[in-house]
Amino acid sequence: QGPSAARRARTMLLLVWTLLNAVSGLKADDGGMVEELVTEKEAEESHRQDSVNLLTFISLLTLTILTIWLFKHRRVRFLHETGLAMIYGLLVGVILRYGIPATSYHNKTPPSCSLKEGPSSTLLLNISGKFFEYTLKGEINFREIHNVEQNDMLRKVTFDPEVFFNILLPPIIFHAGYSLKKRHFFRNLGSIITYAFLGTAISCFVIGNLMYGVVKLMRAVGQLTEKFYYTDCLFFGAIISATDPVTVLAIFNELHADGDLYALLFGESVMNDAVAIVLSSSIVAYQPAGANTHMFDASAFFKSVGIFLGIFSGSFVMGAATGVVTALISCSFTKLHCFPLLETALFFLMSWSTFLLAEACGFTGVVAVLFCGITQAHYTSNNLSEESTKRTKQLFEVLHFLAENFIFSYMGLALFTFQKHIFSPIFIIGAFVAIFIGRALNIYPLSFLLNLGRRDKIRGNFQHMMMFAGLRGAMAFALAIRDTATSARQMMFTTTLLIVFFTVWVFGGGTTPMLSWLHIRVGVDPDQDLQPSGDSFQVLQGDEGQSKTKQESAWLFRLWYTFDHNYLKPILTHSGPPLTSTLPSYCGPLASCLTSPRAYENHEQLRDPDTDLIHNDADLTFTFGDTAITTNGASASRADATGGLGWSTNGKRSGSTSEEALERELDSREQELLSRGTRLVFPMEDHI
Amino acid sequence: QGPSAARRARTMLLLVWTLLNAVSGLKADDGGMVEELVTEKEAEESHRQDSVNLLTFISLLTLTILTIWLFKHRRVRFLHETGLAMIYGLLVGVILRYGIPATSYHNKTPPSCSLKEGPSSTLLLNISGKFFEYTLKGEINFREIHNVEQNDMLRKVTFDPEVFFNILLPPIIFHAGYSLKKRHFFRNLGSIITYAFLGTAISCFVIGNLMYGVVKLMRAVGQLTEKFYYTDCLFFGAIISATDPVTVLAIFNELHADGDLYALLFGESVMNDAVAIVLSSSIVAYQPAGANTHMFDASAFFKSVGIFLGIFSGSFVMGAATGVVTALISCSFTKLHCFPLLETALFFLMSWSTFLLAEACGFTGVVAVLFCGITQAHYTSNNLSEESTKRTKQLFEVLHFLAENFIFSYMGLALFTFQKHIFSPIFIIGAFVAIFIGRALNIYPLSFLLNLGRRDKIRGNFQHMMMFAGLRGAMAFALAIRDTATSARQMMFTTTLLIVFFTVWVFGGGTTPMLSWLHIRVGVDPDQDLQPSGDSFQVLQGDEGQSKTKQESAWLFRLWYTFDHNYLKPILTHSGPPLTSTLPSYCGPLASCLTSPRAYENHEQLRDPDTDLIHNDADLTFTFGDTAITTNGASASRADATGGLGWSTNGKRSGSTSEEALERELDSREQELLSRGTRLVFPMEDHI
Repeated sequence: QGPSAARRARTMLLLVWTLLNAVSGLKADDGGMVEELVTEKEAEESHRQDSVNLLTFISLLTLTILTIWLFKHRRVRFLHETGLAMIYGLLVGVILRYGIPATSYHNKTPPSCSLKEGPSSTLLLNISGKFFEYTLKGEINFREIHNVEQNDMLRKVTFDPEVFFNILLPPIIFHAGYSLKKRHFFRNLGSIITYAFLGTAISCFVIGNLMYGVVKLMRAVGQLTEKFYYTDCLFFGAIISATDPVTVLAIFNELHADGDLYALLFGESVMNDAVAIVLSSSIVAYQPAGANTHMFDASAFFKSVGIFLGIFSGSFVMGAATGVVTALISCSFTKLHCFPLLETALFFLMSWSTFLLAEACGFTGVVAVLFCGITQAHYTSNNLSEESTKRTKQLFEVLHFLAENFIFSYMGLALFTFQKHIFSPIFIIGAFVAIFIGRALNIYPLSFLLNLGRRDKIRGNFQHMMMFAGLRGAMAFALAIRDTATSARQMMFTTTLLIVFFTVWVFGGGTTPMLSWLHIRVGVDPDQDLQPSGDSFQVLQGDEGQSKTKQESAWLFRLWYTFDHNYLKPILTHSGPPLTSTLPSYCGPLASCLTSPRAYENHEQLRDPDTDLIHNDADLTFTFGDTAITTNGASASRADATGGLGWSTNGKRSGSTSEEALERELDSREQELLSRGTRLVFPMEDHI
Repeated sequence: QGPSAARRARTMLLLVWTLLNAVSGLKADDGGMVEELVTEKEAEESHRQDSVNLLTFISLLTLTILTIWLFKHRRVRFLHETGLAMIYGLLVGVILRYGIPATSYHNKTPPSCSLKEGPSSTLLLNISGKFFEYTLKGEINFREIHNVEQNDMLRKVTFDPEVFFNILLPPIIFHAGYSLKKRHFFRNLGSIITYAFLGTAISCFVIGNLMYGVVKLMRAVGQLTEKFYYTDCLFFGAIISATDPVTVLAIFNELHADGDLYALLFGESVMNDAVAIVLSSSIVAYQPAGANTHMFDASAFFKSVGIFLGIFSGSFVMGAATGVVTALISCSFTKLHCFPLLETALFFLMSWSTFLLAEACGFTGVVAVLFCGITQAHYTSNNLSEESTKRTKQLFEVLHFLAENFIFSYMGLALFTFQKHIFSPIFIIGAFVAIFIGRALNIYPLSFLLNLGRRDKIRGNFQHMMMFAGLRGAMAFALAIRDTATSARQMMFTTTLLIVFFTVWVFGGGTTPMLSWLHIRVGVDPDQDLQPSGDSFQVLQGDEGQSKTKQESAWLFRLWYTFDHNYLKPILTHSGPPLTSTLPSYCGPLASCLTSPRAYENHEQLRDPDTDLIHNDADLTFTFGDTAITTNGASASRADATGGLGWSTNGKRSGSTSEEALERELDSREQELLSRGTRLVFPMEDHI
């Protein structure tokens, strides 16, 4: 049965391939319709061409899917779907570039006219009394004027770079935010934030400075004559610092590798995408006043830092706010459950509007979408019906899958069809060395610092794995292709493309051997792994004194937890205690207005061993217990006294209700542990 | 609990509305960033503007969803979601038109330059040595030159009409094809095709000729000075003949109205969309040779008919072919079941590629997508795993829902923001009268003819309901907005918009009263309705002689059924008998190569009362039994002798295997009927 299926599969592949070629062949064909107007004919031709281009990509995706299936079926792990998509893209790129003769009927320079004024977005063309409207496409190089129409076909297959930012990246990033495994993510939140912010900044500056050296070297040996500023190097450092270990994570998922390592890698890659995108736009905004030196300027630097903080926090607030609004809506319209279609559509629309809202306000849509995803997962998904939760998850899964594979196959295609590649061997080699050094100076020193504070140390093999998993992917590509106007940017784009290819194929393919070489445990039982391991037990079950000690350093988190549990959760979801019991009595009317009727019902059952509720509460308890340590780790370099002070003042301030709630949860948590019969001894020893 | 939820909902609505207004207000705001290049700033501004526009629509959809929920919650049926979307669109249109002052900073005529040659798609602009590339947007009227930039904001909110055809219509039409209720649809196939082809043609010509009269009248009273040809009238007839009773069907679904009436209405509306789109493009292609009279010309007429047949059959073949290829792939990759995500993605991509393939080949993508949907439902969905079937259905459901409501809210918006409306009272009144007469001359005479042949007559109240349900919707709008260059087309667009508004609100809102007034039975138990009613019983259980008589007239269908069951189903799905038993023995190797291993397994169980299989087979039997009558009905005007001849020759030709298969099915069908305990008497009397 196996070989027969494979034979049939091969026949099918051949069939699809033939079909694809037949369709590609259609390009040369002009069709038979004769239209009066040239413009109408051209519009139709252009529409047909667009269809063929999209069809090419869709056929590529189809092929990728079929081959992935073959690979999955045979448990081939050395090549991930994204790597495969790139290979197919490369093949089609080669065919488009060399296989199809240049169309000759357009082999002429387009008409041109001269104006004195600067370019405006709209231009009117007067042809014997008839007026035609033209829109600006962009500046073109004088050299390329004669190629404008000749390379029409290759140009046609080139998408507007903004497509990546506005259509393909949002579902990928949203899905990443939405599917962060809450428990492991929050447990390692401090480390993740450290790697993402501090680590990306380190990586960016290390790579930027190294590349500046490389650029000086190139200029010295006469390999570079065009402009290449220091800010360009920093920009390259920023875009290439966005890691995307999608290949590694897929294998982790399949082999059930260690949950903490997964959370560290995934969390870092998700957050550093956001950091890299904002960092790169801040660097672009870094314009030293007046002078054209592009060297260091304190005021411009601080302006850049300000822009970074402004854009990042703005996007964060916007994403979180839309998430909260969605939660509020889904919480208010309690009966929306009966119409899963409406619920899913609402969820989809609200998530998309986050992106648009952020873009409309001048923030970064992708970052907003990321935090919207995290917020939606934390609040809104509690309000959705089971059916809708599943639907929503599947919808974003499909969108994410299609978008990701589309980007990667486009990358493959771009290597041959992109018109302005500049292959500079010294720059490329320099970049490979630089990203290696940059990654090393990110992971190892930060891990050392984090380990000073972490109880659950990031061990050596984890650090090596994180070093190894520094793949580059969709985000680096999208940032690189966004602006390819200058030769410096073109060189960066080419180099980025090669780095993505190399890392995805070589590092991605080497993940499985690397896992076993580094002795990273795989086949972790997900159920067991979902149980708290290590620290949270200690926090929960240590004697009162020790528990206090751990909690003391986490006053900020405790404050947040109290606020979230007592006020946000009751307002935004149906879980948690009713607001009437947590707000002071003079807020009574407001509280009863904001609390959903279901919260009361839920509250009644709070002591029942209701699995759903306990799951919910236990989740938070883990979060609390675990992040206590992590946050501690992150702020290890700061004075520990702050924590103590914070606790003594804030612990009182938070009132007795939150204390009760926490204790109630600890109770129910213990009950659950007993009833599940899991080991209650500290399971820490197998961690180190 | 109810009032409290409603209060909360209202608060939320207010909140969303405030947010929306705040965002709309952002438009005037210019942001703080200072860029060196004007073009770059303009590009950013344009991007921001695009975000705001999309956001407006998304907010509209969100509002629509929330209000629909309120309506559904309170069982309000007089206003459907599409009607609601239009109202919200209207409101926002009014705000955009009158509420926001015209931006003044663009209040100047764009620069223009003159050329001798005709317009080309690309234009180069030379500004002191720097070259900029411009692309053609379209011809503009001399009058409007000064308004080009002034009306920028209203223009911005206007989408490229091709968006409707390439992005919004395909999911709507595919979903319609995919969700045709097979049983009732095939039972009434003949009638549906008659209404769709003959009916739409009648409607088109009746409306076209009446409107030509109206145009002559307008010219006589001096209301019309611009050109308005006979072909324009016919074109209007074609676009306005596409019915879209989405509102009525939603109510039918909710009230479980009669299944046959539902199938007739739904089938007709789905198919006549396809007919209308091809008909309108054939009329556009109707150019009487040389002369500009636009009057009747026999050769041009036959050319048009040829184009109609060519495009329609080409699109049909292309859609069916892609459906078959998908079925083949999903059938070959038997283990694809384990990866529902891959399956769904593949299904989605193949369906989309149908559209693109058809467009690339110069056929009509929307029509291809429709037949692809029908084929997918017939073959591919049998191969999908249960999980994938559900996922795929839900995916297309969401896409369809979003696209449909988007189009309708855009319609509302367009009434105020579209720049070139021409309101002509005579034309509008004439059009309302014409569509009424056109619909009447479509439904009543054709029903009379069909009833001559149908055993299960289309009764008077059904005919009235079909007459009443002649709503116009998305397709008419999309066809009308596609070309608004001449004043004739602009007048048509305005009129179409008003007709859509009126029919959706008035007829859509009046569906429930109309149903009870016409005594159409509602609350039909879907389970009971799934049982064969009337004729199929008679065919299956009538004595051998009568059964033969009925089958005789359906030789064409029988031939198709035999072929489908013996050859197509086994190749394309896992059901049906293995090919090795249906093909002659000398085809042995080919047969065993093409038959999936699961078919053998299924074949073994063929006599078992396996519900899944029986469902499948019973389905076919119904189809066979029922359509026999319908096909008979449709071809009633032709000589009945053909049928008899066909049977006597083809019945033998189809060989013994198919006979056996059919009888086996009849057996199992009867077993099933007995086991289910449904009534076995002829249930026809309650039909008339």
